[in-house]
Amino acid sequence: MTHETPKPDWIAVDLSRTPTRVWAMRADGSVLLHTTLPTLDDFHDWTCLAQQLKDAYPEDAKGKKFLFCGAHEIPETAVPCAIPKAKSVSVDNLELDLALLPGIRQEKPADLMQGDETRIAGFLVKEPQFDGILCQPGMRTSWAHISAEEVVSFRSFLTGELLDFLDQAEDTGFDEAALQAGLDDIMSRPAELSAALFTLRAEATLQGLSPDVTRARLMAVLIGAELSAARPYWLGQEVVIMGNADSDLIRAYEIALKAQGAMLRVVDADSALLAGMQKSYLQLTQSDDSA
Amino acid sequence: MTHETPKPDWIAVDLSRTPTRVWAMRADGSVLLHTTLPTLDDFHDWTCLAQQLKDAYPEDAKGKKFLFCGAHEIPETAVPCAIPKAKSVSVDNLELDLALLPGIRQEKPADLMQGDETRIAGFLVKEPQFDGILCQPGMRTSWAHISAEEVVSFRSFLTGELLDFLDQAEDTGFDEAALQAGLDDIMSRPAELSAALFTLRAEATLQGLSPDVTRARLMAVLIGAELSAARPYWLGQEVVIMGNADSDLIRAYEIALKAQGAMLRVVDADSALLAGMQKSYLQLTQSDDSA
Repeated sequence: MTHETPKPDWIAVDLSRTPTRVWAMRADGSVLLHTTLPTLDDFHDWTCLAQQLKDAYPEDAKGKKFLFCGAHEIPETAVPCAIPKAKSVSVDNLELDLALLPGIRQEKPADLMQGDETRIAGFLVKEPQFDGILCQPGMRTSWAHISAEEVVSFRSFLTGELLDFLDQAEDTGFDEAALQAGLDDIMSRPAELSAALFTLRAEATLQGLSPDVTRARLMAVLIGAELSAARPYWLGQEVVIMGNADSDLIRAYEIALKAQGAMLRVVDADSALLAGMQKSYLQLTQSDDSA
Repeated sequence: MTHETPKPDWIAVDLSRTPTRVWAMRADGSVLLHTTLPTLDDFHDWTCLAQQLKDAYPEDAKGKKFLFCGAHEIPETAVPCAIPKAKSVSVDNLELDLALLPGIRQEKPADLMQGDETRIAGFLVKEPQFDGILCQPGMRTSWAHISAEEVVSFRSFLTGELLDFLDQAEDTGFDEAALQAGLDDIMSRPAELSAALFTLRAEATLQGLSPDVTRARLMAVLIGAELSAARPYWLGQEVVIMGNADSDLIRAYEIALKAQGAMLRVVDADSALLAGMQKSYLQLTQSDDSA
Protein backbone atom coordinates (compact mmCIF):
# COMPACT_ATOMS: atom_id res chain seq x y z
CA MET A 1 0.00 0.00 0.00
CA THR A 2 1.24 3.47 -0.80
CA HIS A 3 0.13 6.67 0.90
CA GLU A 4 -0.89 9.29 -1.62
CA THR A 5 -0.60 12.99 -0.86
CA PRO A 6 -4.17 14.09 -0.22
CA LYS A 7 -5.52 16.20 -3.05
CA PRO A 8 -7.87 19.12 -2.66
CA ASP A 9 -11.52 18.81 -3.67
CA TRP A 10 -12.05 22.51 -4.11
CA ILE A 11 -10.28 25.88 -3.96
CA ALA A 12 -11.41 28.89 -1.90
CA VAL A 13 -10.26 32.33 -3.04
CA ASP A 14 -10.81 35.54 -1.00
CA LEU A 15 -10.47 38.62 -3.22
CA SER A 16 -11.71 40.97 -0.50
CA ARG A 17 -8.36 41.36 1.25
CA THR A 18 -4.88 42.32 0.09
CA PRO A 19 -3.00 40.11 -0.66
CA THR A 20 -5.47 37.74 -2.30
CA ARG A 21 -5.70 34.54 -0.26
CA VAL A 22 -6.19 30.99 -1.51
CA TRP A 23 -7.02 27.80 0.38
CA ALA A 24 -6.86 24.24 -1.00
CA MET A 25 -9.83 22.50 0.67
CA ARG A 26 -11.16 18.98 1.23
CA ALA A 27 -14.85 18.32 0.70
CA ASP A 28 -15.32 18.05 4.49
CA GLY A 29 -14.14 21.65 4.96
CA SER A 30 -10.63 20.88 6.22
CA VAL A 31 -7.74 22.98 4.93
CA LEU A 32 -4.89 21.26 3.06
CA LEU A 33 -2.95 24.35 2.13
CA HIS A 34 -3.20 28.10 2.65
CA THR A 35 -1.28 30.62 0.55
CA THR A 36 -1.40 34.20 -0.62
CA LEU A 37 -1.03 35.48 -4.17
CA PRO A 38 0.81 38.57 -5.35
CA THR A 39 -1.69 41.38 -5.59
CA LEU A 40 -3.13 41.86 -9.04
CA ASP A 41 -3.56 45.33 -10.49
CA ASP A 42 -7.26 44.88 -9.92
CA PHE A 43 -7.38 42.42 -7.07
CA HIS A 44 -11.06 41.75 -7.67
CA ASP A 45 -10.33 40.44 -11.17
CA TRP A 46 -11.27 36.82 -10.64
CA THR A 47 -11.18 35.97 -14.36
CA CYS A 48 -7.51 36.80 -14.59
CA LEU A 49 -6.84 35.02 -11.32
CA ALA A 50 -8.62 31.86 -12.44
CA GLN A 51 -6.42 31.81 -15.56
CA GLN A 52 -3.31 32.17 -13.39
CA LEU A 53 -4.42 29.35 -11.11
CA LYS A 54 -5.03 27.08 -14.09
CA ASP A 55 -1.63 27.93 -15.57
CA ALA A 56 0.08 27.28 -12.25
CA TYR A 57 -1.65 23.97 -11.54
CA PRO A 58 -2.70 22.53 -14.95
CA GLU A 59 -3.14 18.97 -13.64
CA ASP A 60 -4.87 19.87 -10.42
CA ALA A 61 -7.24 22.52 -11.69
CA LYS A 62 -9.40 20.30 -13.89
CA GLY A 63 -12.57 19.04 -12.31
CA LYS A 64 -12.19 21.07 -9.13
CA LYS A 65 -14.54 23.76 -7.99
CA PHE A 66 -13.07 27.24 -7.58
CA LEU A 67 -15.09 29.52 -5.29
CA PHE A 68 -14.38 33.23 -5.26
CA CYS A 69 -15.67 35.73 -2.73
CA GLY A 70 -15.10 39.48 -2.90
CA ALA A 71 -15.28 39.55 -6.71
CA HIS A 72 -16.65 42.61 -8.46
CA GLU A 73 -18.60 42.45 -11.74
CA ILE A 74 -21.54 40.43 -10.50
CA PRO A 75 -24.88 41.93 -9.50
CA GLU A 76 -25.16 42.35 -5.73
CA THR A 77 -28.36 41.62 -3.82
CA ALA A 78 -30.01 44.57 -2.08
CA VAL A 79 -30.64 44.60 1.70
CA PRO A 80 -32.65 43.53 3.58
CA CYS A 81 -31.72 40.06 2.32
CA ALA A 82 -30.40 36.65 3.23
CA ILE A 83 -26.79 36.02 2.20
CA PRO A 84 -27.02 35.42 -1.57
CA LYS A 85 -26.17 31.98 -2.94
CA ALA A 86 -23.08 31.25 -5.04
CA LYS A 87 -23.52 31.43 -8.81
CA SER A 88 -21.73 29.11 -11.23
CA VAL A 89 -20.02 31.00 -14.03
CA SER A 90 -18.00 30.06 -17.08
CA VAL A 91 -15.21 31.89 -18.83
CA ASP A 92 -14.44 31.41 -22.53
CA ASN A 93 -11.43 29.17 -23.19
CA LEU A 94 -11.07 28.34 -19.53
CA GLU A 95 -12.37 24.89 -18.70
CA LEU A 96 -12.69 25.41 -15.00
CA ASP A 97 -15.61 24.82 -12.65
CA LEU A 98 -16.01 28.37 -11.29
CA ALA A 99 -18.50 29.93 -8.88
CA LEU A 100 -18.78 33.45 -7.49
CA LEU A 101 -20.29 34.47 -4.14
CA PRO A 102 -22.21 37.71 -4.82
CA GLY A 103 -21.91 40.74 -2.55
CA ILE A 104 -24.76 42.80 -1.12
CA ARG A 105 -25.62 46.43 -1.61
CA GLN A 106 -27.70 49.13 0.06
CA GLU A 107 -29.43 52.00 -1.69
CA LYS A 108 -29.62 54.57 1.10
CA PRO A 109 -27.14 55.36 2.47
CA ALA A 110 -25.37 53.92 -0.59
CA ASP A 111 -23.15 51.07 0.49
CA LEU A 112 -21.50 47.97 -0.90
CA MET A 113 -20.20 44.76 0.71
CA GLN A 114 -18.03 42.35 -1.27
CA GLY A 115 -16.53 39.60 0.86
CA ASP A 116 -17.75 40.49 4.34
CA GLU A 117 -21.12 38.85 3.50
CA THR A 118 -19.33 35.49 3.19
CA ARG A 119 -17.84 35.85 6.68
CA ILE A 120 -21.34 36.71 7.91
CA ALA A 121 -22.67 33.54 6.24
CA GLY A 122 -20.00 31.50 8.02
CA PHE A 123 -20.80 33.07 11.38
CA LEU A 124 -24.50 32.25 10.86
CA VAL A 125 -23.69 28.58 10.18
CA LYS A 126 -22.69 28.32 13.84
CA GLU A 127 -25.14 30.85 15.27
CA PRO A 128 -28.22 30.97 13.04
CA GLN A 129 -30.31 32.55 15.83
CA PHE A 130 -27.93 35.53 16.22
CA ASP A 131 -29.69 38.88 16.49
CA GLY A 132 -27.23 41.75 16.75
CA ILE A 133 -24.30 43.46 15.07
CA LEU A 134 -21.36 41.96 13.20
CA CYS A 135 -18.46 44.39 12.94
CA GLN A 136 -15.61 43.60 10.53
CA PRO A 137 -12.66 45.99 10.91
CA GLY A 138 -10.19 46.15 8.03
CA MET A 139 -9.07 48.61 5.36
CA ARG A 140 -12.79 49.36 5.33
CA THR A 141 -14.84 48.50 8.40
CA SER A 142 -18.40 47.24 8.02
CA TRP A 143 -21.16 47.20 10.63
CA ALA A 144 -24.03 44.87 9.74
CA HIS A 145 -27.31 44.49 11.59
CA ILE A 146 -28.26 40.78 11.50
CA SER A 147 -31.68 39.38 12.35
CA ALA A 148 -33.50 36.17 11.34
CA GLU A 149 -30.50 35.13 9.20
CA GLU A 150 -30.80 38.30 7.15
CA VAL A 151 -28.66 41.41 6.76
CA VAL A 152 -31.12 44.13 7.71
CA SER A 153 -28.83 47.10 7.00
CA PHE A 154 -25.13 47.92 7.05
CA ARG A 155 -22.71 50.83 7.06
CA SER A 156 -19.07 51.00 5.98
CA PHE A 157 -16.23 53.31 7.09
CA LEU A 158 -12.85 54.11 5.57
CA THR A 159 -11.16 54.06 8.98
CA GLY A 160 -8.55 51.36 8.24
CA GLU A 161 -7.58 52.88 4.92
CA LEU A 162 -7.14 56.32 6.47
CA LEU A 163 -5.18 54.80 9.36
CA ASP A 164 -2.91 53.01 6.93
CA PHE A 165 -2.33 56.23 4.99
CA LEU A 166 -1.77 58.50 7.98
CA ASP A 167 0.29 56.16 10.18
CA GLN A 168 3.79 57.05 9.06
CA ALA A 169 5.60 55.10 11.74
CA GLU A 170 6.60 51.48 11.46
CA ASP A 171 4.21 49.03 13.15
CA THR A 172 5.15 49.40 16.80
CA GLY A 173 2.00 48.56 18.74
CA PHE A 174 0.08 51.25 20.55
CA ASP A 175 -0.22 52.82 23.97
CA GLU A 176 -3.57 51.83 25.52
CA ALA A 177 -3.82 54.81 27.90
CA ALA A 178 -3.26 57.21 25.01
CA LEU A 179 -5.95 55.40 23.01
CA GLN A 180 -8.44 55.75 25.87
CA ALA A 181 -7.74 59.46 26.38
CA GLY A 182 -7.92 60.20 22.66
CA LEU A 183 -11.24 58.36 22.30
CA ASP A 184 -12.92 60.44 24.97
CA ASP A 185 -11.71 63.58 23.27
CA ILE A 186 -12.84 62.85 19.72
CA MET A 187 -16.15 61.27 20.73
CA SER A 188 -17.13 64.49 22.45
CA ARG A 189 -16.24 66.49 19.30
CA PRO A 190 -16.52 64.08 16.32
CA ALA A 191 -16.98 66.92 13.82
CA GLU A 192 -13.38 67.96 14.45
CA LEU A 193 -11.90 64.90 12.72
CA SER A 194 -9.76 66.58 10.09
CA ALA A 195 -8.53 69.25 12.52
CA ALA A 196 -7.81 66.56 15.14
CA LEU A 197 -5.66 64.70 12.61
CA PHE A 198 -3.46 67.76 12.13
CA THR A 199 -3.36 68.56 15.84
CA LEU A 200 -2.05 65.05 16.39
CA ARG A 201 0.74 65.54 13.87
CA ALA A 202 1.70 68.88 15.42
CA GLU A 203 1.70 67.38 18.93
CA ALA A 204 3.91 64.52 17.78
CA THR A 205 6.45 67.10 16.57
CA LEU A 206 6.15 69.71 19.32
CA GLN A 207 5.93 67.30 22.25
CA GLY A 208 8.19 64.57 20.83
CA LEU A 209 5.60 61.81 21.26
CA SER A 210 6.77 58.20 21.03
CA PRO A 211 5.58 56.19 17.99
CA ASP A 212 3.29 53.96 20.08
CA VAL A 213 1.58 56.99 21.65
CA THR A 214 1.27 58.75 18.28
CA ARG A 215 -0.21 55.62 16.75
CA ALA A 216 -2.64 55.17 19.64
CA ARG A 217 -3.83 58.77 19.28
CA LEU A 218 -4.29 58.35 15.53
CA MET A 219 -6.33 55.18 16.12
CA ALA A 220 -8.34 57.04 18.75
CA VAL A 221 -9.22 59.88 16.39
CA LEU A 222 -10.24 57.62 13.50
CA ILE A 223 -11.96 54.84 15.47
CA GLY A 224 -13.59 57.34 17.81
CA ALA A 225 -15.06 59.32 14.92
CA GLU A 226 -16.33 56.05 13.44
CA LEU A 227 -17.92 54.89 16.69
CA SER A 228 -19.59 58.25 17.03
CA ALA A 229 -21.18 57.95 13.57
CA ALA A 230 -21.93 54.21 13.99
CA ARG A 231 -23.63 54.67 17.39
CA PRO A 232 -27.02 53.34 16.19
CA TYR A 233 -25.23 50.08 15.34
CA TRP A 234 -23.58 49.33 18.68
CA LEU A 235 -25.64 51.15 21.31
CA GLY A 236 -27.61 48.59 23.33
CA GLN A 237 -26.84 45.85 20.80
CA GLU A 238 -24.93 42.58 21.07
CA VAL A 239 -21.75 43.26 19.08
CA VAL A 240 -19.48 40.59 17.61
CA ILE A 241 -16.15 41.76 16.16
CA MET A 242 -14.87 39.48 13.42
CA GLY A 243 -11.10 39.57 12.98
CA ASN A 244 -7.77 38.36 14.28
CA ALA A 245 -7.93 38.91 18.07
CA ASP A 246 -4.14 39.46 18.18
CA SER A 247 -4.03 42.30 15.68
CA ASP A 248 -3.58 45.89 16.85
CA LEU A 249 -6.62 47.03 14.89
CA ILE A 250 -8.98 44.48 16.44
CA ARG A 251 -7.61 45.15 19.94
CA ALA A 252 -8.12 48.87 19.43
CA TYR A 253 -11.76 48.38 18.36
CA GLU A 254 -12.29 46.08 21.34
CA ILE A 255 -10.87 48.63 23.80
CA ALA A 256 -12.84 51.46 22.20
CA LEU A 257 -16.16 49.61 22.25
CA LYS A 258 -15.68 48.31 25.79
CA ALA A 259 -14.95 51.88 26.94
CA GLN A 260 -18.41 52.75 25.58
CA GLY A 261 -19.96 49.91 27.58
CA ALA A 262 -20.83 47.82 24.50
CA MET A 263 -21.63 44.11 24.92
CA LEU A 264 -18.84 42.53 22.99
CA ARG A 265 -16.95 39.44 21.88
CA VAL A 266 -14.37 38.69 19.17
CA VAL A 267 -14.57 35.74 16.76
CA ASP A 268 -12.01 34.63 14.19
CA ALA A 269 -12.70 36.08 10.73
CA ASP A 270 -10.84 33.48 8.66
CA SER A 271 -12.67 30.56 10.28
CA ALA A 272 -15.92 32.32 9.50
CA LEU A 273 -14.85 32.95 5.90
CA LEU A 274 -14.05 29.28 5.28
CA ALA A 275 -17.27 28.16 6.97
CA GLY A 276 -19.18 30.50 4.69
CA MET A 277 -17.41 29.26 1.59
CA GLN A 278 -17.81 25.62 2.67
CA LYS A 279 -21.55 26.17 2.98
CA SER A 280 -21.62 27.47 -0.60
CA TYR A 281 -19.46 24.57 -1.78
CA LEU A 282 -21.90 22.05 -0.30
CA GLN A 283 -24.91 23.85 -1.81
CA LEU A 284 -23.28 23.82 -5.25
CA THR A 285 -22.30 20.15 -4.94
CA GLN A 286 -25.78 19.12 -3.87
CA SER A 287 -27.37 20.98 -6.76
CA ASP A 288 -24.84 19.29 -9.09
CA ASP A 289 -25.87 15.89 -7.69
CA SER A 290 -29.56 16.57 -8.07
CA ALA A 291 -29.10 17.81 -11.63
CA MET B 1 29.63 98.50 -24.26
CA THR B 2 28.46 94.93 -23.61
CA HIS B 3 25.23 93.89 -22.04
CA GLU B 4 25.77 91.46 -19.21
CA THR B 5 23.18 88.91 -18.20
CA PRO B 6 21.74 90.27 -14.96
CA LYS B 7 22.85 88.28 -11.95
CA PRO B 8 20.73 87.55 -8.92
CA ASP B 9 21.42 89.30 -5.63
CA TRP B 10 19.76 86.69 -3.49
CA ILE B 11 17.99 83.32 -3.68
CA ALA B 12 14.54 82.55 -2.22
CA VAL B 13 13.74 78.92 -1.40
CA ASP B 14 10.28 77.69 -0.34
CA LEU B 15 10.50 74.31 1.41
CA SER B 16 6.86 74.35 2.45
CA ARG B 17 5.49 73.00 -0.83
CA THR B 18 6.28 69.96 -2.94
CA PRO B 19 8.25 70.26 -5.17
CA THR B 20 10.68 72.66 -3.50
CA ARG B 21 10.67 75.99 -5.33
CA VAL B 22 13.56 78.37 -5.91
CA TRP B 23 13.62 81.96 -7.18
CA ALA B 24 16.69 83.92 -8.27
CA MET B 25 15.96 87.47 -7.07
CA ARG B 26 17.23 91.01 -7.59
CA ALA B 27 17.70 93.26 -4.57
CA ASP B 28 14.61 95.25 -5.62
CA GLY B 29 12.41 92.16 -5.30
CA SER B 30 12.09 91.39 -9.02
CA VAL B 31 12.34 87.77 -10.14
CA LEU B 32 15.09 86.75 -12.58
CA LEU B 33 14.39 83.03 -12.62
CA HIS B 34 11.92 80.60 -11.07
CA THR B 35 12.52 76.88 -10.92
CA THR B 36 11.56 73.79 -8.94
CA LEU B 37 13.88 71.19 -7.47
CA PRO B 38 13.41 67.44 -7.31
CA THR B 39 11.87 66.60 -3.96
CA LEU B 40 14.37 65.56 -1.35
CA ASP B 41 13.67 62.64 0.94
CA ASP B 42 13.09 65.18 3.66
CA PHE B 43 11.99 68.23 1.74
CA HIS B 44 12.52 70.45 4.77
CA ASP B 45 16.23 69.58 4.87
CA TRP B 46 17.64 72.97 3.98
CA THR B 47 21.22 72.02 4.90
CA CYS B 48 21.32 69.36 2.22
CA LEU B 49 19.59 71.68 -0.23
CA ALA B 50 22.06 74.49 0.39
CA GLN B 51 24.92 72.09 -0.38
CA GLN B 52 23.20 71.06 -3.63
CA LEU B 53 22.70 74.68 -4.65
CA LYS B 54 26.36 75.45 -4.01
CA ASP B 55 27.45 72.40 -5.99
CA ALA B 56 25.17 73.35 -8.87
CA TYR B 57 26.19 77.01 -9.02
CA PRO B 58 29.71 77.23 -7.50
CA GLU B 59 30.46 80.62 -9.07
CA ASP B 60 27.12 82.21 -8.39
CA ALA B 61 26.54 81.00 -4.87
CA LYS B 62 29.37 82.86 -3.16
CA GLY B 63 28.44 86.15 -1.56
CA LYS B 64 24.71 85.76 -2.19
CA LYS B 65 22.09 85.50 0.50
CA PHE B 66 20.03 82.30 0.51
CA LEU B 67 16.70 82.65 2.32
CA PHE B 68 14.73 79.53 3.23
CA CYS B 69 11.16 79.43 4.44
CA GLY B 70 9.37 76.28 5.53
CA ALA B 71 12.50 74.76 7.08
CA HIS B 72 12.21 72.49 10.11
CA GLU B 73 14.85 72.31 12.83
CA ILE B 74 14.62 75.88 14.02
CA PRO B 75 12.64 76.97 17.10
CA GLU B 76 9.26 78.37 16.15
CA THR B 77 7.74 81.40 17.87
CA ALA B 78 4.55 80.81 19.85
CA VAL B 79 1.31 82.69 19.06
CA PRO B 80 0.10 85.32 19.65
CA CYS B 81 3.09 86.86 17.89
CA ALA B 82 4.28 89.05 15.05
CA ILE B 83 5.83 87.17 12.14
CA PRO B 84 9.29 86.18 13.43
CA LYS B 85 12.38 87.68 11.80
CA ALA B 86 14.81 85.73 9.65
CA LYS B 87 17.84 84.27 11.43
CA SER B 88 21.28 84.03 9.84
CA VAL B 89 22.77 80.56 10.18
CA SER B 90 26.02 78.93 9.19
CA VAL B 91 26.78 75.36 8.22
CA ASP B 92 30.21 73.78 8.67
CA ASN B 93 32.24 73.55 5.46
CA LEU B 94 29.67 75.49 3.52
CA GLU B 95 30.70 79.07 2.91
CA LEU B 96 27.28 80.41 2.07
CA ASP B 97 25.35 83.35 3.46
CA LEU B 98 22.26 81.52 4.76
CA ALA B 99 19.18 82.68 6.62
CA LEU B 100 16.09 80.80 7.80
CA LEU B 101 12.60 82.23 8.29
CA PRO B 102 11.25 80.58 11.47
CA GLY B 103 7.75 79.14 11.64
CA ILE B 104 5.19 79.72 14.36
CA ARG B 105 3.57 77.29 16.75
CA GLN B 106 0.53 77.11 19.01
CA GLU B 107 0.31 75.20 22.27
CA LYS B 108 -3.43 74.55 22.48
CA PRO B 109 -4.76 73.20 20.24
CA ALA B 110 -1.27 72.05 19.25
CA ASP B 111 -0.44 73.41 15.83
CA LEU B 112 2.52 74.26 13.67
CA MET B 113 3.01 76.59 10.70
CA GLN B 114 6.17 76.40 8.58
CA GLY B 115 5.98 78.50 5.44
CA ASP B 116 2.47 79.94 5.61
CA GLU B 117 3.75 82.59 8.06
CA THR B 118 5.98 83.99 5.29
CA ARG B 119 2.98 84.37 2.95
CA ILE B 120 1.17 86.11 5.82
CA ALA B 121 4.15 88.47 6.24
CA GLY B 122 3.99 89.29 2.51
CA PHE B 123 0.26 89.95 2.66
CA LEU B 124 0.81 92.30 5.61
CA VAL B 125 3.42 94.29 3.67
CA LYS B 126 0.57 95.47 1.43
CA GLU B 127 -2.22 95.51 4.01
CA PRO B 128 -0.69 96.14 7.44
CA GLN B 129 -4.08 97.22 8.85
CA PHE B 130 -5.78 93.92 7.94
CA ASP B 131 -7.99 92.48 10.69
CA GLY B 132 -9.51 89.16 9.72
CA ILE B 133 -8.74 85.64 8.54
CA LEU B 134 -6.09 84.43 6.11
CA CYS B 135 -6.91 80.96 4.76
CA GLN B 136 -4.19 79.05 2.88
CA PRO B 137 -5.52 75.87 1.24
CA GLY B 138 -2.96 73.25 0.24
CA MET B 139 -1.92 69.73 1.25
CA ARG B 140 -2.62 71.16 4.70
CA THR B 141 -4.94 74.14 4.99
CA SER B 142 -4.27 76.81 7.61
CA TRP B 143 -6.70 79.40 9.00
CA ALA B 144 -4.98 82.28 10.77
CA HIS B 145 -6.63 85.06 12.72
CA ILE B 146 -4.66 88.26 12.02
CA SER B 147 -4.95 91.48 14.03
CA ALA B 148 -2.55 94.41 14.59
CA GLU B 149 0.09 92.70 12.40
CA GLU B 150 0.08 89.66 14.68
CA VAL B 151 -1.06 86.07 14.29
CA VAL B 152 -3.54 85.76 17.15
CA SER B 153 -4.31 82.05 16.69
CA PHE B 154 -4.46 79.49 13.90
CA ARG B 155 -5.80 76.06 13.05
CA SER B 156 -4.64 73.55 10.41
CA PHE B 157 -6.54 70.80 8.59
CA LEU B 158 -5.37 67.78 6.61
CA THR B 159 -8.07 68.32 3.96
CA GLY B 160 -5.77 68.62 0.93
CA GLU B 161 -3.69 65.61 1.91
CA LEU B 162 -6.79 63.46 2.39
CA LEU B 163 -8.23 64.73 -0.89
CA ASP B 164 -5.03 63.84 -2.69
CA PHE B 165 -5.05 60.34 -1.16
CA LEU B 166 -8.73 59.61 -1.75
CA ASP B 167 -9.13 61.16 -5.21
CA GLN B 168 -8.35 58.18 -7.39
CA ALA B 169 -9.38 59.77 -10.68
CA GLU B 170 -7.11 61.81 -12.88
CA ASP B 171 -7.46 65.58 -12.50
CA THR B 172 -10.64 66.30 -14.43
CA GLY B 173 -12.13 69.39 -12.82
CA PHE B 174 -15.27 69.17 -10.73
CA ASP B 175 -19.01 69.58 -11.04
CA GLU B 176 -20.10 72.71 -9.17
CA ALA B 177 -23.69 71.63 -8.56
CA ALA B 178 -22.50 68.36 -7.02
CA LEU B 179 -20.10 70.31 -4.82
CA GLN B 180 -22.93 72.56 -3.56
CA ALA B 181 -25.26 69.64 -2.82
CA GLY B 182 -22.55 67.66 -1.05
CA LEU B 183 -21.57 70.64 1.10
CA ASP B 184 -25.07 71.11 2.44
CA ASP B 185 -25.21 67.44 3.33
CA ILE B 186 -21.93 67.12 5.22
CA MET B 187 -22.25 70.46 7.00
CA SER B 188 -25.49 69.31 8.55
CA ARG B 189 -23.81 66.07 9.73
CA PRO B 190 -20.07 66.76 10.01
CA ALA B 191 -19.52 63.88 12.44
CA GLU B 192 -20.28 61.43 9.64
CA LEU B 193 -17.06 62.20 7.74
CA SER B 194 -15.54 58.73 7.54
CA ALA B 195 -18.91 57.11 6.74
CA ALA B 196 -19.60 59.78 4.11
CA LEU B 197 -16.29 58.99 2.44
CA PHE B 198 -17.29 55.36 2.02
CA THR B 199 -20.84 56.23 0.96
CA LEU B 200 -19.32 58.35 -1.78
CA ARG B 201 -17.20 55.47 -3.04
CA ALA B 202 -20.19 53.12 -3.02
CA GLU B 203 -22.34 55.68 -4.88
CA ALA B 204 -19.65 56.15 -7.50
CA THR B 205 -19.77 52.39 -8.16
CA LEU B 206 -23.50 51.73 -7.79
CA GLN B 207 -24.69 54.84 -9.63
CA GLY B 208 -21.84 55.06 -12.15
CA LEU B 209 -20.98 58.68 -11.27
CA SER B 210 -18.76 60.62 -13.67
CA PRO B 211 -15.24 61.49 -12.42
CA ASP B 212 -16.02 65.21 -12.14
CA VAL B 213 -19.12 64.54 -10.02
CA THR B 214 -17.26 62.03 -7.85
CA ARG B 215 -14.43 64.50 -7.35
CA ALA B 216 -16.85 67.33 -6.51
CA ARG B 217 -18.57 65.15 -3.90
CA LEU B 218 -15.25 64.16 -2.36
CA MET B 219 -14.23 67.83 -2.16
CA ALA B 220 -17.63 68.61 -0.64
CA VAL B 221 -17.22 66.01 2.11
CA LEU B 222 -13.69 67.05 3.05
CA ILE B 223 -14.00 70.81 2.66
CA GLY B 224 -17.48 70.80 4.24
CA ALA B 225 -16.21 68.93 7.31
CA GLU B 226 -13.35 71.41 7.55
CA LEU B 227 -15.62 74.47 7.28
CA SER B 228 -17.84 73.01 9.95
CA ALA B 229 -14.92 72.67 12.38
CA ALA B 230 -13.35 76.00 11.33
CA ARG B 231 -16.60 77.96 11.73
CA PRO B 232 -15.20 80.25 14.48
CA TYR B 233 -12.58 81.37 11.96
CA TRP B 234 -14.82 82.42 9.07
CA LEU B 235 -18.19 83.24 10.62
CA GLY B 236 -18.71 87.01 10.51
CA GLN B 237 -15.03 87.59 9.62
CA GLU B 238 -13.35 89.10 6.59
CA VAL B 239 -11.75 86.08 4.91
CA VAL B 240 -8.89 86.24 2.41
CA ILE B 241 -7.98 83.01 0.62
CA MET B 242 -4.33 82.88 -0.44
CA GLY B 243 -3.68 80.62 -3.40
CA ASN B 244 -3.82 80.29 -7.16
CA ALA B 245 -7.29 81.52 -8.16
CA ASP B 246 -7.34 79.15 -11.16
CA SER B 247 -6.75 75.95 -9.20
CA ASP B 248 -9.61 73.54 -8.53
CA LEU B 249 -8.87 73.51 -4.81
CA ILE B 250 -9.00 77.30 -4.43
CA ARG B 251 -12.19 77.52 -6.53
CA ALA B 252 -13.80 74.83 -4.40
CA TYR B 253 -12.96 76.68 -1.16
CA GLU B 254 -14.28 79.89 -2.72
CA ILE B 255 -17.59 78.26 -3.73
CA ALA B 256 -17.93 76.56 -0.34
CA LEU B 257 -17.28 79.72 1.68
CA LYS B 258 -19.53 81.87 -0.51
CA ALA B 259 -22.33 79.33 -0.06
CA GLN B 260 -21.97 79.96 3.68
CA GLY B 261 -22.27 83.70 3.14
CA ALA B 262 -18.65 84.45 4.08
CA MET B 263 -17.10 87.80 3.08
CA LEU B 264 -14.38 86.69 0.76
CA ARG B 265 -11.62 87.52 -1.69
CA VAL B 266 -8.71 85.58 -3.21
CA VAL B 267 -5.11 86.87 -3.40
CA ASP B 268 -2.12 85.26 -5.08
CA ALA B 269 -0.06 83.13 -2.70
CA ASP B 270 3.25 83.19 -4.59
CA SER B 271 3.29 87.00 -4.83
CA ALA B 272 2.70 87.12 -1.08
CA LEU B 273 5.47 84.59 -0.46
CA LEU B 274 8.03 86.61 -2.41
CA ALA B 275 6.92 89.87 -0.76
CA GLY B 276 7.41 88.20 2.63
CA MET B 277 10.85 86.90 1.72
CA GLN B 278 11.85 90.24 0.18
CA LYS B 279 10.95 91.96 3.45
CA SER B 280 13.24 89.55 5.31
CA TYR B 281 16.00 90.07 2.73
CA LEU B 282 15.87 93.85 3.23
CA GLN B 283 15.89 93.49 7.02
CA LEU B 284 18.94 91.23 6.87
CA THR B 285 20.76 93.53 4.44
CA GLN B 286 20.07 96.58 6.56
CA SER B 287 21.35 94.87 9.69
CA ASP B 288 24.47 93.79 7.70
CA ASP B 289 25.03 97.43 6.69
CA SER B 290 24.65 98.72 10.20
CA ALA B 291 27.02 96.06 11.58
